Amino acid sequence: MASTGLMMQLPLLISSILEHAERHHGQQEIVARRTEGNIQRITYSELAARTRRLANALVSAGIQPGENIATMGWNTVRHVEIYYAVSGIGAVTHTLNPRYSPQQLIYIINHAKDTTLFFDITFAPLVKAIAPHCPTVKRWVMMIDADKMPAESPVEGLINYEHFMSGASSEFVWPQLDENMACTLCYTSGTTGNPQGVLYSHRSTVLHAMGANTADALGLRRTDTILPVVPMFHVNAWGIPYGALMVGAKLVLPGAQLDGPSLYALMEEEKVNIAAGVPTIWLGLLNHVLQNGLKFSSFRRTLVGGSAMPISLIKAYDELGVHVMHGWGMTEMSPLGTVSQTSGPDLELDKAAQYDITAKQGHCLFGVDMKIVAEDGTELPWNGEATGELLVRGHWIISQYYGGDGQKAFSQDTAGRGWFATGDVSRIFPDGTMQITDRRKDVI
Amino acid sequence: MASTGLMMQLPLLISSILEHAERHHGQQEIVARRTEGNIQRITYSELAARTRRLANALVSAGIQPGENIATMGWNTVRHVEIYYAVSGIGAVTHTLNPRYSPQQLIYIINHAKDTTLFFDITFAPLVKAIAPHCPTVKRWVMMIDADKMPAESPVEGLINYEHFMSGASSEFVWPQLDENMACTLCYTSGTTGNPQGVLYSHRSTVLHAMGANTADALGLRRTDTILPVVPMFHVNAWGIPYGALMVGAKLVLPGAQLDGPSLYALMEEEKVNIAAGVPTIWLGLLNHVLQNGLKFSSFRRTLVGGSAMPISLIKAYDELGVHVMHGWGMTEMSPLGTVSQTSGPDLELDKAAQYDITAKQGHCLFGVDMKIVAEDGTELPWNGEATGELLVRGHWIISQYYGGDGQKAFSQDTAGRGWFATGDVSRIFPDGTMQITDRRKDVI
Repeated sequence: MASTGLMMQLPLLISSILEHAERHHGQQEIVARRTEGNIQRITYSELAARTRRLANALVSAGIQPGENIATMGWNTVRHVEIYYAVSGIGAVTHTLNPRYSPQQLIYIINHAKDTTLFFDITFAPLVKAIAPHCPTVKRWVMMIDADKMPAESPVEGLINYEHFMSGASSEFVWPQLDENMACTLCYTSGTTGNPQGVLYSHRSTVLHAMGANTADALGLRRTDTILPVVPMFHVNAWGIPYGALMVGAKLVLPGAQLDGPSLYALMEEEKVNIAAGVPTIWLGLLNHVLQNGLKFSSFRRTLVGGSAMPISLIKAYDELGVHVMHGWGMTEMSPLGTVSQTSGPDLELDKAAQYDITAKQGHCLFGVDMKIVAEDGTELPWNGEATGELLVRGHWIISQYYGGDGQKAFSQDTAGRGWFATGDVSRIFPDGTMQITDRRKDVI
Repeated sequence: MASTGLMMQLPLLISSILEHAERHHGQQEIVARRTEGNIQRITYSELAARTRRLANALVSAGIQPGENIATMGWNTVRHVEIYYAVSGIGAVTHTLNPRYSPQQLIYIINHAKDTTLFFDITFAPLVKAIAPHCPTVKRWVMMIDADKMPAESPVEGLINYEHFMSGASSEFVWPQLDENMACTLCYTSGTTGNPQGVLYSHRSTVLHAMGANTADALGLRRTDTILPVVPMFHVNAWGIPYGALMVGAKLVLPGAQLDGPSLYALMEEEKVNIAAGVPTIWLGLLNHVLQNGLKFSSFRRTLVGGSAMPISLIKAYDELGVHVMHGWGMTEMSPLGTVSQTSGPDLELDKAAQYDITAKQGHCLFGVDMKIVAEDGTELPWNGEATGELLVRGHWIISQYYGGDGQKAFSQDTAGRGWFATGDVSRIFPDGTMQITDRRKDVI
């Protein structure tokens, strides 16, 4: 007769991350460039109080568990508040990517049946264009100081974010939800067809953030200052708004200004030592630094993903004293699947060999498994030569798309285990290092 | 209506750690000093195959899920095999601490109703003494090469470990157990009364190992070589046999030889860069190094726990180039609750201030919460002055003792949340740093 362990049973919840940050790192700061233009500083303790006020406001507005609440916003404090408040009450934070076309956004909002949409003033013209085609959205909320609301409103009945939460109490007890409930929703586009939704659970999100905080991945610490340049509308900024609060790291948010000079200034002022973003962002920053003969006084590590980091860029950052951590993943993977970086004995190799390690996609984090398969589905060997489509499975990997589209990406092996087909073509070396070599043309 | 996330649902299982190590770090090694005297080297791939053979042997012997299987052994490869094989089939690895008195061991074995006991030859006299009083134990298995079995057997019907698994196949599919099932059992003694059992679950153990692998805790990496001097019969060697396999670190096991010269030789030969153990072990090693004018060529970090690390010892290791990570926890906490170590801006402080940080107990890992309470149970402020009994809760904290003893250590707050009373008296500083100041006399 099997026996049950006698350990405490606590659900893995988004709200538990915020509670942890408030209790154990309440004095730590978030520093953010606001859409209003100035720099904001707020402690995790203050953030938690404001988030509870927002939670009360959401509940008072009649928002129910399971309801999809959209955001169209930059990396800001208010966006972090929404992440935690919406998921915390059991509703779903649906981050809209403003880089989609208006037609795609209209499709996505209607597909998700979003009932509320929080947006930054930057996106007012876009909101004006799509609002008439989004009948499910009952509330349009602009994330801006009350005294800075625009004279001309993009939609009828526009609500101000600060007004929305102004009357609410900062006392709120987070419900002990089922950890398998949905917490966030993010649409991703394949090469054909409509964007498809990925519906993350509290459990998958917390496990992913714990995995990302392990030393071989992003490895955030209490004394780190991290700048996620990767947007909060893109796979939850790779989970950094969760991971930073878990360890009590200082979180620096760039708002709408992602150009090299703005990022450099923010990094120097706030003594950022870790940043995360796509290669093009790092190219822009590098150009600014090189053209102006600058150097980084605190920046030491960067997590790069979204597309492959060229060796020339890895080398350029290494020469500026910045260690590159090269991540691979997808929206469907929360997103981190593998991370490649040099450590320990690797650092005794010559530089070219080190860059070659970093430029590959690296090893699977614990919690993620992968395999490569031939056209007929048979598994291929990890000999560093055979290439085939890369399939993945794990605690933070999608099991089906929201709304049931794209079923051909999902398969079961003979042992009954589910796999997700990434669309990437890879080889895997005998030591477990993975390298993307190509992309399938017919990806969904 | 709440919605369920659409991510893969995989249980958090001990067997998934071994599968991960085999697939993604199959070439990595375990190096162990054997009780037979020589050094053994085995890859994770070979370990996984042997563990499957052992699993088949256990099932063939009729061992059922939920059955308690005892071990009395040093840190060796066979002990690792038992950890994974027994938990993997749904039975419970019950590690016996040979430092208990024979009377206590007899009590524990009968209380747990262990059916099988695996032991090292070192403990043959102890086994001979207790065996007549352990009627539930049907199989006594000595972990030794078949040709090195002792002429005189400590028990009737003694089984050899290699014989036990010799006929078994290395093909075995690990069952997809409920993650809340028990995987390991460890007894701990308070200051009065009988030892009490802590029954860990697969979920709690995997989450604890993930937490221990975060950068602010042990922070193990693929390129690390870790030596757990802390015994596998003591709170699962602080989870290192799980955490090392999760990341693919090289695992070095000291066997029965824990003296300074033996540890030093093993560390130098295997290029150990991280080790873990109690302060007395590090004192022994330090004396050997200082008396012989030695230095460490690879040793760079040590996790110390079990009792407080004196500042003099922190300083001595720092001067030898070894960074001290100071952990606090209990058997009832899997064991890691807090870790204290310097990083980032701390390293710009003068040495005395750095040692002062390290000598405290540090911050809670995500997954663990704590509070201090007055005699009447009211929560005390985190002002660095008030001291009170330390209570904890979290994913890897005990909810009740095995067999239902010691209930007065468990309480519920007004919000219905359960807490475990540690028996330690502490203060907590406003930044979340905890410091143990005393120990309650009436601890259970």
